[in-house]
Amino acid sequence: MAERVPVVVGVGMTPFAANREDCTVRDLAVEAVLDCVRDAGLETLAAVQHGLTSYESDHFNRQMTLGAILHDTLGLNPTPNVRVEGGGATGALALRTAWAYLQSGLCDSMLVYGCETNGKRISAQTANQLFALSADVDWEMMVGGTYTAFYAAMMRAHMEKYGTQREHFAHVAVRNRRNAANNPIAQKPMDITVADVLNARPIAEPYTLLDCSLLSDGAAAMLLATREWAAQHSPRYAERPVVAFTGTGCGTDTMRLGDRYPHLTNFAGKRAAAQQAYRMAGISDPLAEIDVAELYDSYSGVEIQAVEDLGFVGEGEGGAAVVAGTFDHGGQLPVNPSGGLLGRGAPVGATGIAQAVEVVQQLWGAVNPARQVADARRGLTDTHAGIGSICVVNIFERQD
Amino acid sequence: MAERVPVVVGVGMTPFAANREDCTVRDLAVEAVLDCVRDAGLETLAAVQHGLTSYESDHFNRQMTLGAILHDTLGLNPTPNVRVEGGGATGALALRTAWAYLQSGLCDSMLVYGCETNGKRISAQTANQLFALSADVDWEMMVGGTYTAFYAAMMRAHMEKYGTQREHFAHVAVRNRRNAANNPIAQKPMDITVADVLNARPIAEPYTLLDCSLLSDGAAAMLLATREWAAQHSPRYAERPVVAFTGTGCGTDTMRLGDRYPHLTNFAGKRAAAQQAYRMAGISDPLAEIDVAELYDSYSGVEIQAVEDLGFVGEGEGGAAVVAGTFDHGGQLPVNPSGGLLGRGAPVGATGIAQAVEVVQQLWGAVNPARQVADARRGLTDTHAGIGSICVVNIFERQD
Repeated sequence: MAERVPVVVGVGMTPFAANREDCTVRDLAVEAVLDCVRDAGLETLAAVQHGLTSYESDHFNRQMTLGAILHDTLGLNPTPNVRVEGGGATGALALRTAWAYLQSGLCDSMLVYGCETNGKRISAQTANQLFALSADVDWEMMVGGTYTAFYAAMMRAHMEKYGTQREHFAHVAVRNRRNAANNPIAQKPMDITVADVLNARPIAEPYTLLDCSLLSDGAAAMLLATREWAAQHSPRYAERPVVAFTGTGCGTDTMRLGDRYPHLTNFAGKRAAAQQAYRMAGISDPLAEIDVAELYDSYSGVEIQAVEDLGFVGEGEGGAAVVAGTFDHGGQLPVNPSGGLLGRGAPVGATGIAQAVEVVQQLWGAVNPARQVADARRGLTDTHAGIGSICVVNIFERQD
Repeated sequence: MAERVPVVVGVGMTPFAANREDCTVRDLAVEAVLDCVRDAGLETLAAVQHGLTSYESDHFNRQMTLGAILHDTLGLNPTPNVRVEGGGATGALALRTAWAYLQSGLCDSMLVYGCETNGKRISAQTANQLFALSADVDWEMMVGGTYTAFYAAMMRAHMEKYGTQREHFAHVAVRNRRNAANNPIAQKPMDITVADVLNARPIAEPYTLLDCSLLSDGAAAMLLATREWAAQHSPRYAERPVVAFTGTGCGTDTMRLGDRYPHLTNFAGKRAAAQQAYRMAGISDPLAEIDVAELYDSYSGVEIQAVEDLGFVGEGEGGAAVVAGTFDHGGQLPVNPSGGLLGRGAPVGATGIAQAVEVVQQLWGAVNPARQVADARRGLTDTHAGIGSICVVNIFERQD
């Protein structure tokens, strides 16, 4: 099956913003896809054999069947389409599904595009409502559970069990926002200190306002194909290193944090996802064999949990590794050079695709020098829904 | 790749009902999946390698990430999951996506389950709202467009261009409801006449109340796997004919009917979907080579349009073929033996899977004698979203 492993033909992004007042979610999808088409050096999308819409919730735009609408808006009829959804893991699940469609032979090229308008476009009241609806409405919402509280409880457990300190995850909040300063599409680069994070407005113990990530308006797109299709249709394909999509894993966990008791510190679904992806990609020592990673820093401490669950360090060792600079620019395994969810932003259905766009551009050596990870040959993306109910890990690597 | 073509290991269904007041959507999913597990002769789901949730809209249960919730409810963690959505085509898109996952090698077995609670559980006001939200909110809802009106306009165009008569599609309304009488899980079997249909309350010219299909509470499940996995894990596999999932096609069309002018009579996306599926399954004369079909009779006339778009008869010939009995029980190609959306019912995310369950049971020779199509070896399912914005055709066949 190796000859059908998908390669990346083109990538596209919109800027991520708190509120793209100038356009609708349709315009965002078009903007990212046109950027992707240009990047691939295509004249049109006519040769593309399949579309895949990555979009989280009908609630965000108060519109059902957005897959059909966006596919139509992009002018892709009568080409087939499918929409995939899995909370915060939506974009990564979309790419994983594209891997399956391409590998299966159903198509030789697939345009994966994700978009969402969930920045300031929605009121704080609506945002809270959407957070509530993404928890378990029958069992959690009624007792006032929200994701910020669930994440905070997980981090409290991590601190108590492993001695992780607020300063450890404040380091993540500082570094990712500084990284965002080198990313022209980032929503909110900031030059802050650990003290700024610790002294910011408390949100849910141990997290302050600066430990929390962003909701964004934005879109991202990736054109995947077989090598044969890529060579035949994309003039850019021969001009840059071939980057293949070599591994994908998915793991799940209970919706409710209480159902995981007493194992509250980490994400079991993420471990399962990582192990599958590593097996596919032939990785045995992830810290040594992965050169760049985009991790799902929905809250600063989540990055510490993720580096453990992804096997970069042992469980409980994430905090110390983070403050030692292991995951900083110039460190052993630079994490979130894009700025992550904390600095670049997160339009839900686009987030997992945007992570993959960053990783692929890093592997191409195509980002600006301040952000470029030297000699990056293999990159990883990590996303999850809720507090890890669905986790997806994808791996891309240079083939030369 | 032929050795990885998925085979059906087990099927399961709940009864379809206007209002399953006794349970939630979670209970429905469990009921269908347990039925499927029993049908496959499995003790547990432990060996199943992947889940796939087929569910239409977050609006129906006012709950986001239902894929994660149902997967958890079914006890499938940490097994991977993915949720697929495409309006009325959701269930068929789910099966198509399972085909891709299995064929790709990402897994050797996949549990596909669809469910929805959208019968009388929701008020008429909410139902109208959901219909409106599934049209194009920016361009159609504001001018009062609803799906019943769009379907009626398509049928008016068909009548004017081809001389199709109200009596032609009333035949479908009568036959499918009579077929439902032989299906113990059907929601609304009726013994009515063509005159009853013509004289029923007008809804949207030319359609009366009895030309319109049902909204249902219900769930359906199908366990698909490679032959090797099936032989290793399912004691039932060796006991009945092997049924393989041999073809799948998907075509799309504009969201808005007006954008198709002047071609308003038929479904272009369905033609594209059928051609792909026929190519995969090696079918050149569908009327002769297909033995049983479940078609998407959301309105009675849609079945007439479908038999044309699927190439069973030429464009404009559907009405005459329907009244000639070509698609009746005992006719050349029996259609909707289950009762279809008109008689059996339609819980959106489950509908395409329920169609496939009927077809597979027909191929196994496992339905009651009054409903059984004699010597059925190859069956087809047809669904679409909206008025054909996403169309999916799937084909199953006996391998002995």
